[in-house]
Amino acid sequence: GFAKVDDAREFRQGFPEVIFGANKTPEQIAGIFNHLVTQNQTVLATRVTPEAATEVCGLVPEAKHDPAGKTLLYKPDTYHLKNQTKKIGVICAGTSDIPVAREAEVTIEAMGHVCESFYDIGVAGIHRLFAQLEEIQSCDVLIVVAGMEGALPSVVGGLVSVPLIAVPTSVGYGTHLNGITSLLSMLNTCASGVTVVNIDNGFGAGYAASLMLRV
Amino acid sequence: GFAKVDDAREFRQGFPEVIFGANKTPEQIAGIFNHLVTQNQTVLATRVTPEAATEVCGLVPEAKHDPAGKTLLYKPDTYHLKNQTKKIGVICAGTSDIPVAREAEVTIEAMGHVCESFYDIGVAGIHRLFAQLEEIQSCDVLIVVAGMEGALPSVVGGLVSVPLIAVPTSVGYGTHLNGITSLLSMLNTCASGVTVVNIDNGFGAGYAASLMLRV
Amino acid sequence: GFAKVDDAREFRQGFPEVIFGANKTPEQIAGIFNHLVTQNQTVLATRVTPEAATEVCGLVPEAKHDPAGKTLLYKPDTYHLKNQTKKIGVICAGTSDIPVAREAEVTIEAMGHVCESFYDIGVAGIHRLFAQLEEIQSCDVLIVVAGMEGALPSVVGGLVSVPLIAVPTSVGYGTHLNGITSLLSMLNTCASGVTVVNIDNGFGAGYAASLMLRV
Amino acid sequence: GFAKVDDAREFRQGFPEVIFGANKTPEQIAGIFNHLVTQNQTVLATRVTPEAATEVCGLVPEAKHDPAGKTLLYKPDTYHLKNQTKKIGVICAGTSDIPVAREAEVTIEAMGHVCESFYDIGVAGIHRLFAQLEEIQSCDVLIVVAGMEGALPSVVGGLVSVPLIAVPTSVGYGTHLNGITSLLSMLNTCASGVTVVNIDNGFGAGYAASLMLRV
Amino acid sequence: GFAKVDDAREFRQGFPEVIFGANKTPEQIAGIFNHLVTQNQTVLATRVTPEAATEVCGLVPEAKHDPAGKTLLYKPDTYHLKNQTKKIGVICAGTSDIPVAREAEVTIEAMGHVCESFYDIGVAGIHRLFAQLEEIQSCDVLIVVAGMEGALPSVVGGLVSVPLIAVPTSVGYGTHLNGITSLLSMLNTCASGVTVVNIDNGFGAGYAASLMLRV
Amino acid sequence: GFAKVDDAREFRQGFPEVIFGANKTPEQIAGIFNHLVTQNQTVLATRVTPEAATEVCGLVPEAKHDPAGKTLLYKPDTYHLKNQTKKIGVICAGTSDIPVAREAEVTIEAMGHVCESFYDIGVAGIHRLFAQLEEIQSCDVLIVVAGMEGALPSVVGGLVSVPLIAVPTSVGYGTHLNGITSLLSMLNTCASGVTVVNIDNGFGAGYAASLMLRV
Amino acid sequence: GFAKVDDAREFRQGFPEVIFGANKTPEQIAGIFNHLVTQNQTVLATRVTPEAATEVCGLVPEAKHDPAGKTLLYKPDTYHLKNQTKKIGVICAGTSDIPVAREAEVTIEAMGHVCESFYDIGVAGIHRLFAQLEEIQSCDVLIVVAGMEGALPSVVGGLVSVPLIAVPTSVGYGTHLNGITSLLSMLNTCASGVTVVNIDNGFGAGYAASLMLRV
Amino acid sequence: GFAKVDDAREFRQGFPEVIFGANKTPEQIAGIFNHLVTQNQTVLATRVTPEAATEVCGLVPEAKHDPAGKTLLYKPDTYHLKNQTKKIGVICAGTSDIPVAREAEVTIEAMGHVCESFYDIGVAGIHRLFAQLEEIQSCDVLIVVAGMEGALPSVVGGLVSVPLIAVPTSVGYGTHLNGITSLLSMLNTCASGVTVVNIDNGFGAGYAASLMLRV
Ligand SMILES: Nc1ncnc2c1ncn2[C@@H]1O[C@H](COP(=O)(O)O)[C@@H](O)[C@H]1O
Ligand SMILES: Nc1ncnc2c1ncn2[C@@H]1O[C@H](COP(=O)(O)O)[C@@H](O)[C@H]1O
Ligand SMILES: Nc1ncnc2c1ncn2[C@@H]1O[C@H](COP(=O)(O)O)[C@@H](O)[C@H]1O
Ligand SMILES: Nc1ncnc2c1ncn2[C@@H]1O[C@H](COP(=O)(O)O)[C@@H](O)[C@H]1O
Ligand SMILES: [Mg+2]
Ligand SMILES: [Mg+2]
Ligand SMILES: [Mg+2]
Ligand SMILES: [Mg+2]
Ligand SMILES: [Mg+2]
Ligand SMILES: [Mg+2]
Ligand SMILES: [Mg+2]
Ligand SMILES: [Mg+2]
Repeated sequence: GFAKVDDAREFRQGFPEVIFGANKTPEQIAGIFNHLVTQNQTVLATRVTPEAATEVCGLVPEAKHDPAGKTLLYKPDTYHLKNQTKKIGVICAGTSDIPVAREAEVTIEAMGHVCESFYDIGVAGIHRLFAQLEEIQSCDVLIVVAGMEGALPSVVGGLVSVPLIAVPTSVGYGTHLNGITSLLSMLNTCASGVTVVNIDNGFGAGYAASLMLRV
Repeated sequence: GFAKVDDAREFRQGFPEVIFGANKTPEQIAGIFNHLVTQNQTVLATRVTPEAATEVCGLVPEAKHDPAGKTLLYKPDTYHLKNQTKKIGVICAGTSDIPVAREAEVTIEAMGHVCESFYDIGVAGIHRLFAQLEEIQSCDVLIVVAGMEGALPSVVGGLVSVPLIAVPTSVGYGTHLNGITSLLSMLNTCASGVTVVNIDNGFGAGYAASLMLRV
Repeated sequence: GFAKVDDAREFRQGFPEVIFGANKTPEQIAGIFNHLVTQNQTVLATRVTPEAATEVCGLVPEAKHDPAGKTLLYKPDTYHLKNQTKKIGVICAGTSDIPVAREAEVTIEAMGHVCESFYDIGVAGIHRLFAQLEEIQSCDVLIVVAGMEGALPSVVGGLVSVPLIAVPTSVGYGTHLNGITSLLSMLNTCASGVTVVNIDNGFGAGYAASLMLRV
Repeated sequence: GFAKVDDAREFRQGFPEVIFGANKTPEQIAGIFNHLVTQNQTVLATRVTPEAATEVCGLVPEAKHDPAGKTLLYKPDTYHLKNQTKKIGVICAGTSDIPVAREAEVTIEAMGHVCESFYDIGVAGIHRLFAQLEEIQSCDVLIVVAGMEGALPSVVGGLVSVPLIAVPTSVGYGTHLNGITSLLSMLNTCASGVTVVNIDNGFGAGYAASLMLRV
Repeated sequence: GFAKVDDAREFRQGFPEVIFGANKTPEQIAGIFNHLVTQNQTVLATRVTPEAATEVCGLVPEAKHDPAGKTLLYKPDTYHLKNQTKKIGVICAGTSDIPVAREAEVTIEAMGHVCESFYDIGVAGIHRLFAQLEEIQSCDVLIVVAGMEGALPSVVGGLVSVPLIAVPTSVGYGTHLNGITSLLSMLNTCASGVTVVNIDNGFGAGYAASLMLRV
Repeated sequence: GFAKVDDAREFRQGFPEVIFGANKTPEQIAGIFNHLVTQNQTVLATRVTPEAATEVCGLVPEAKHDPAGKTLLYKPDTYHLKNQTKKIGVICAGTSDIPVAREAEVTIEAMGHVCESFYDIGVAGIHRLFAQLEEIQSCDVLIVVAGMEGALPSVVGGLVSVPLIAVPTSVGYGTHLNGITSLLSMLNTCASGVTVVNIDNGFGAGYAASLMLRV
Repeated sequence: GFAKVDDAREFRQGFPEVIFGANKTPEQIAGIFNHLVTQNQTVLATRVTPEAATEVCGLVPEAKHDPAGKTLLYKPDTYHLKNQTKKIGVICAGTSDIPVAREAEVTIEAMGHVCESFYDIGVAGIHRLFAQLEEIQSCDVLIVVAGMEGALPSVVGGLVSVPLIAVPTSVGYGTHLNGITSLLSMLNTCASGVTVVNIDNGFGAGYAASLMLRV
Repeated sequence: GFAKVDDAREFRQGFPEVIFGANKTPEQIAGIFNHLVTQNQTVLATRVTPEAATEVCGLVPEAKHDPAGKTLLYKPDTYHLKNQTKKIGVICAGTSDIPVAREAEVTIEAMGHVCESFYDIGVAGIHRLFAQLEEIQSCDVLIVVAGMEGALPSVVGGLVSVPLIAVPTSVGYGTHLNGITSLLSMLNTCASGVTVVNIDNGFGAGYAASLMLRV
């Protein structure tokens, strides 16, 4: 009936296919979700509406819904952390960027890795960054989520020596152009070691960061 | 013959008309420059080519040519500083941004004000900013010149309590879009008290900063 | 619970953190607002919906709601004007631009300064400008708010000798591109002494103008 | 050999085909020019390089070359003014915009109409406009040429009651985007009665203005 | 109370101020409308919602509402045609473009001129144009309204010898970019004598065309 | 040494790999060209400079250079027309568009098909189109090349019932944006049966048209 | 009453006019639909809302509604396949692209041709493509529908030797820019034989593909 | 004299400051290069012209110039590989993309890591990819460099389970927009684990990939 789920993806790529919930009906999401659960895989769905979450949790009560990040996660019996010593730091510039950070964090959990959160650390109040710098520098990979002028990855990137994934968000107005400004800023960073994903793509950042831990 | 020079501008606006050298021939520039010199006014020309500079200095040997900022300045006998206690700080992110900073500085001098330079202070090596912070905080108005991701005004703006004019430059490549990225970044700054001028517009920043000293 | 409010900002920057109400729930806004009130600071919130205003005013009855500018202002006992002789002129091109002008004016009040309003002065009926020119010229700093072709700052800027902050608005249609046209026009002004803020950013203009009065 | 010249255009549209010189070799231009001369028509070529002008004038010595506007005009014996009482005013904001104004003026002459020039009348020194307002108001159609913020058509348009054709020019830098800013500004004018042509299109403005005199 | 209505505009520009209804409440529109009616002027309001129309017609029963073009028109006793022999042709490419054409037509009526409509004449079925060509060629000024590829003004412009005002509309999808495609197409027309107004700006086209009839 | 030439492409796709000459040195082009000649294949190179043409023709004297279209074509002994009854019409709006039309025509020849040219048929003089309509309607596939407003494919497309490939060119100025305007116009055509290729991509149009003849 | 339906289009172009349902009321659609039915033609309407479908089917019960593709199709008694041996392959990258694919398929049926569907074949799981390659290679023309990075036409285009029409969709987020990314990707494909239509334009692709079968 | 070289960067970030040669004179580059050499550090300069290379190699004969990638590399006695078992694969879509790939490779060497090259593997001839797939899958991190439609990272990304850095290049024409198309395509990839850097930024990709090997 539904989409051709790529069942063999775990075998091929180290992680099962993830359900992108946007533009899918609650029924479609629940159908695919359940199909993957019955295969005893970790199942992750992103961009799920509250309605879809209710639908899925009715069918799969063990699924955990994170309303902030709009994710659904099911972990099978066989779930275990793939690495307990390395961790990913998730830094977030403003309160409104938190949903994107959450999407990244749940993705990291789904892939069997550990993260630590550093929220509301904007460049315009840079003492907040220095107050937590040592803790940040102890992370093995960093994800930096920012809207507005998107300057945080540049500042953080100059203070660390690990790979840093910058995530532009659509938080801003006027000339922010729904995230284009943050993206352009991050692509033009003076800091070395920074790579970038699509606007609001917390999932992509969490997935790539997890792969980096496995190198 | 030439353009209708707005001779009465000093009376009306506190500063004589400035010659924008781009797209003018050396002869045109020299003609207007000389016309204003004979009126015993301060004369400033920006965006002057070496050829135009030679032409003008042949005619008006007292004119001072700054090759870095591409400016020509003539100060009449009556020139004097309008204010000796307040100063404008001119901060510059990278070596390639210096020409724009110089254009601002010569404009400030032309208008009878004093500035102090802080060069090569990029966000990706933020210790360079903190090393000079006290000196920067002693300025009454700040001009911050930056290309690439244009993040420096956000960081500086969060550490000071004076008006800050951000000047985006065309220094960058690819998605920098000839300065659009730096401009967008500055317009979307989280820091308060920041206003912005056109890409590479050192003159405009120096002029506005000088007016602010006179408030 | 909520965002990390930057309590020390008044000490560091001369004004407490302002609450940007867009994308925040009434509860979040009320929580932060109240937190700052209890610290006996001036509290300003912008972009507040009527619902958020009701929530805050229920909690803090002394808060003043301006529906036109969508602001909430609380002034503590210790509030006083920082300067009674200098004033900021707020000029507004069309009726639809008034909300942005109001955001600027309430910000100026919050920061302890005085402003005077000049509304509905479009370039296409320029006699309206000349009728009030003397009064406008008596201001120490100017804010000019305009949508459509954004030409008003150029005309006013050529008639005054004080710093002028241009605020593009999203008022227009078709090729106006939600304010981009007004912004581009203002960044390319022929008038000297003009600096620009983000589209619809009355707060930023009011804040920067207030800092200019303190130079 | 050459392009299919539309010989019957005068009959169909009231004016013979005009040669657009850009991207054509001197030989191609001279060939088409000469072909039309032998038909005893008015011949106009625009965007001609000095080399092309030399080539054409060698072949057709009566052709008049205007280096400022980059035009070549040949008027046959039968040439005569089509209207001697009505005139088109050509207003020009800055010195650098003059070439575009000249292209319009020579087009008007080619079509048998009369124009009057008003040069270097920028909005930032608006007294220059008022000094000539009566003379401007005596024109039957207006062409207003401007680069930078392109605000002049809005100001003039509010002071007259005749059709006004606004011509954006590529004069500017940075966010001027090679004329896009002037164009957008003109398309969004608050003044009524204003229509717009392509960037730097002096020919199009002169042609349309001439047609308006014939209504 | 309301906006500063520019009462003297008729005297200055030959037509009273027109009410731009977008972003105004029914009460605001009705207030201004009534104010102008009491001055015994022709009153035109554009972009009026059905609610605003009801409000105005309740107050001014003689006002005529055109739902297709979203206009309201009040003609005083003194209303009379300014010219009965010359007429404006309004050509319209597709059914969805008709509202913009209607806005132009009611504006022409308000200004005391006469127009003739030619609807649903798209370039992809060009026989529809030729079937009415003679009638079209008898008009003194043409307005051509088109969305999609905006090619109609080019085709018509090559067949007539009168001024032609091209009006791009927002009718299209995908790469049409809400009218930008039609606008760009019209600005780059190969036909001579074509000028352009903002996207969907039927009012501007009707106003300018009326002025052309008065040259 | 050189690039990995895809020798098996003829077998896989029905035509050998074509050499894209832009950004390649004369030596590189000559090397690849010769390599393919020795395999007794038809060899086509596009975007070749005069220098590269000289280099290749020195090595392979049988190669035919078309300076207008900037192509080089070598036909082996085995070359023969794949179809002699069907033909592709190549229509071209203006003289400056001819190079792109030529690139298409040589590609068609290389692929073993026949074409007929219709040059200088712009929409603004539409009688030129009707004069050749019958001949155009006898073609089996059409390629329409146009710059400026790119309207010709819409007009032609409404008069024929065969597949039409529209090729936007970079011929224009100002808002033409180096071909973007023509492209957008063609993508938004009202005519059915039209598909589009990249700006100036005569090769792509000729290749696709040839494939259509083989369906 | 309604639009001028182009009744003679079948005669002129091989297919009757198609009703573009967007921006039309159910009543307008039903009126035109019925008018064409009474002429005993095949009638196709695209972009129809459920409301419009109900309206039409009430009037013309034989009309077939496809909710996925938002089409309505009426086939008269005289309907017959124009070709039974050649077929069009419709390949679709993701589940969300299916509506656009359906619009193409119903258009193909309306024009009397046959198609075969290949759904959910994204480039990121390319084994799904190879699994069906032989079947795909047996098609005479291909339509490839894709959103996101729009890479599928490049991959497929390199594996086949028939004309391929690429259809970009608006499926994506952030920098996808509502389909612009997919479109740009397709216009810049390295594969030969690919032509492109407007974003989400399944109809245009189906129509052009059908014409290709008739060459 | 020169720029403030950030001497302590190796200590802080694990690699000394790299010289960005664009917009610097040969003398400036040679000066900074030599300064770093005397500190016995690895020195890397990118975007160096042949003139700058000659200047530097005159001063520092041990510096290795790579003309293809426009880099200069000096390795001190203390240089050694930081990791000999892990390697970075550098995949390159077309011949013209090789310079960007080379910049990445020399950066990797400078940082003490090992890479393997896979050149001229475009998506339109995908058998070239599968022929080397096993070798590609043995890499620990991948860099994929591509211009045109930028589809290669999507295809490769679906076949591997390591972090993949996508580098868009400016190779293309027309709607390629100097690399914007490749960038947008890569940011919107369906493949997971892909992050992106600025257009033509081989250095940034090499640097980030090296950091990933150190996680
Ligand atoms: N939030 C997200 N952003 C971007 N891609 C996602 C997201 N969530 C899931 N995906 C990707 O979407 C794919 C599934 O797409 P679909 O087949 O349309 O459900 C997964 O394999 C992921 O690679
Ligand atoms: N209307 C506004 N426009 C732009 N920035 C604002 C506005 N109102 C408040 N801000 C800024 O937003 C900051 C607070 O953001 P947040 O922490 O998200 O509430 C304040 O410190 C101000 O600098
Ligand atoms: N549909 C319209 N499009 C553009 N401008 C209009 C339109 N209708 C009225 N206007 C202009 O808007 C002015 C009134 O604007 P306002 O003062 O905001 O009501 C009038 O004088 C007209 O010049
Ligand atoms: N003028 C052209 N425009 C677009 N693509 C072309 C052109 N000429 C050749 N090509 C394509 O470029 C490929 C060769 O690219 P390259 O390997 O860089 O020489 C050929 O297989 C063609 O598909
Ligand atoms: Mg905050
Ligand atoms: Mg440096
Ligand atoms: Mg008004
Ligand atoms: Mg001047
Ligand atoms: Mg129709
Ligand atoms: Mg011609
Ligand atoms: Mg899927
Ligand atoms: Mg190749």
